[in-house]
Amino acid sequence: MALHQSGGVGDAVALLADRLSRLAGQARLTGADVILITPGPDLQYFLGHSVGSHERLTCLVVPAVGDASLLVPTLERPGWSGTPVEALDVEISTWTDGEDAYLALAALLPRDARVLAVDYHMPAVHALSAQATVPGAELTLAGEAIAELRMRKGADEIAALADAGAAIDRVQLRVGEWLRAGRTENEVAADIAAAIVAEGHQRADFVIVGSGPNGASPHHEASDRIIEPGDMVVIDIGGPMPSGYFSDCTRTYLVATDAGGVDVSAGVREVYETVRGAQAAGVAAVRPGVAAESVDAAARTVIEQAGFGEYFITRTGHGIGLEVHEHPYMVAGNTRLLEAGMAFSVEPGIYLPGRFGVRIEDVVVVGDDGPALMNTAPTDLTIVGASG
Amino acid sequence: MALHQSGGVGDAVALLADRLSRLAGQARLTGADVILITPGPDLQYFLGHSVGSHERLTCLVVPAVGDASLLVPTLERPGWSGTPVEALDVEISTWTDGEDAYLALAALLPRDARVLAVDYHMPAVHALSAQATVPGAELTLAGEAIAELRMRKGADEIAALADAGAAIDRVQLRVGEWLRAGRTENEVAADIAAAIVAEGHQRADFVIVGSGPNGASPHHEASDRIIEPGDMVVIDIGGPMPSGYFSDCTRTYLVATDAGGVDVSAGVREVYETVRGAQAAGVAAVRPGVAAESVDAAARTVIEQAGFGEYFITRTGHGIGLEVHEHPYMVAGNTRLLEAGMAFSVEPGIYLPGRFGVRIEDVVVVGDDGPALMNTAPTDLTIVGASG
Repeated sequence: MALHQSGGVGDAVALLADRLSRLAGQARLTGADVILITPGPDLQYFLGHSVGSHERLTCLVVPAVGDASLLVPTLERPGWSGTPVEALDVEISTWTDGEDAYLALAALLPRDARVLAVDYHMPAVHALSAQATVPGAELTLAGEAIAELRMRKGADEIAALADAGAAIDRVQLRVGEWLRAGRTENEVAADIAAAIVAEGHQRADFVIVGSGPNGASPHHEASDRIIEPGDMVVIDIGGPMPSGYFSDCTRTYLVATDAGGVDVSAGVREVYETVRGAQAAGVAAVRPGVAAESVDAAARTVIEQAGFGEYFITRTGHGIGLEVHEHPYMVAGNTRLLEAGMAFSVEPGIYLPGRFGVRIEDVVVVGDDGPALMNTAPTDLTIVGASG
Repeated sequence: MALHQSGGVGDAVALLADRLSRLAGQARLTGADVILITPGPDLQYFLGHSVGSHERLTCLVVPAVGDASLLVPTLERPGWSGTPVEALDVEISTWTDGEDAYLALAALLPRDARVLAVDYHMPAVHALSAQATVPGAELTLAGEAIAELRMRKGADEIAALADAGAAIDRVQLRVGEWLRAGRTENEVAADIAAAIVAEGHQRADFVIVGSGPNGASPHHEASDRIIEPGDMVVIDIGGPMPSGYFSDCTRTYLVATDAGGVDVSAGVREVYETVRGAQAAGVAAVRPGVAAESVDAAARTVIEQAGFGEYFITRTGHGIGLEVHEHPYMVAGNTRLLEAGMAFSVEPGIYLPGRFGVRIEDVVVVGDDGPALMNTAPTDLTIVGASG
């Protein structure tokens, strides 16, 4: 996963150096003596590179004061050659099989470090073993501090999200090629997964094909259910681009009932247009200074007023970037104020158990004056599979 | 990932119930009031099923005394329908977006629970947030307790590992179809990845093609390096089967120097045969009652006596099962005594920087009297790419 960059290597290094410097600032602000980060999206964000084997410790050490350092297994050291970290003021240390990785880590901690803050994703074995090497150490989460940086996207990151949005839109616009009565959800999902890669993603990370009653389960993936004429089908798809940034887009389709059939029942139409209105209302609520929960409320109010409130069983959205789900979350209780550069999904839905579901999802970036949509595939009800 | 089972659903449920019961026993033995497990291989092992979205808490709660329970997000509850957990004495609770998942978890903990033991893989955000809901709670690792169960494989698990070994052996036996001078490592890796799936795996988890100097980095994956005549090429491949159990097998090949060329230099031959002898010695050392580190020592001694000790820069092996790397590890300092049913790799290597590497790897299960090999692809030096 390369750092997305429009400039040269020097630009990338300066960007990473700035991120590391601001992370140290977050450590001071939150009272952490040191922040520890193991492989994953946080390491990718701060070093422009993230590799690590299953259980051997790789750990970035960012003290509140002083230079950062990186501990890697000796046998993985070659994988860091030629990465931006070699141009940063980050010393790379190694430990070898048979040595105690956590003692090697302890040697890199600031003298008298007592508050160790770890990234959200760090496996408990690493977090607790690191703590155990420092008598009396307190373990805290650096996740919020890291999110303070990661959730404010820079221009390069927004460009990467726009690329991702355009790529997944191209797939949504092709769904009619594959989605029709008589095929299984799994067959449709396999075609979509191939198209996600063909349209420029690193890989398909998730391919939800929720037909008929399966669409009423928001996280149903795909099954051997045979799609029937007249089914509503939720298609929620995405994955990481070569930049590392994710796409995530949902559209809900209606499968034609017969040759050229456009038989949309009033009930289906009402549910669909309610979700569509809710999604538009959520997007329209996006601007700097508005609380995240207001975006949720804007979408939810539309669905509640239409009488479907009890069937909107999820939050309205999640942040997106180097992870498909990250801060900020558009959910009741999240009073964080939106700022320009924050990126997240707006994806209300109505889920009618045993019948069908409708969800419409776009990724939105907070602009200076309002929302900037990363997805532009049309949201009006698309009928597919008409054989006429 | 379905539980591998030769018997019926009732057998599977009884097996899982027994595992949960023994896990509670481990909690009592290790002083934990409760063991907490989030999605991953441990959850798969104890519930025969493991799903969970990126950041919403799913957690199995196994008290030292009393019945286990499972907390899942409301919107993922349908994904647990029809799984063995519904036939176990495990109550399923849900929490909904906007609620505090950790308070919901706290309600499932035994009254007065003070020592919370978490699985190795649990993300720090879940482990520390769970701890924070219980004033004065101590957080410990359940990994060793869980490993006590997982590293002793039952007959079904050994059968699953044998299936996995046979599948990856079939791929190794076909390497000559793809590996030849003039192709890139990436091209060869893509063909191997497809064959790993075609031969019965769920997916290719890792495909190392380390040609020439790249083979001297044990965790090199694959690159755009063009394979040259006379290259030694390390092929280390594997993935999970539909059972969830992993394969992992390494062979090192010699690329023919010319049409039909079989020009093996004495130096290459010496290194290869040293590794082959070391691998055989490691395997031969496997039997109940022997320390794990003795397997490492048996292989290492052969390489040291041949004068290549400084170039064997890894441990000799790792346990394997529902994870590709798990307990027990064949490494200096691991004095654990092997028992019948333990499964692990034996994979010594010699890594000559700038030149080439040789590694040979089989998965071995400890039998009552000695080793049982899960891989049977020949280990003699195979020459590929001869066009004659």
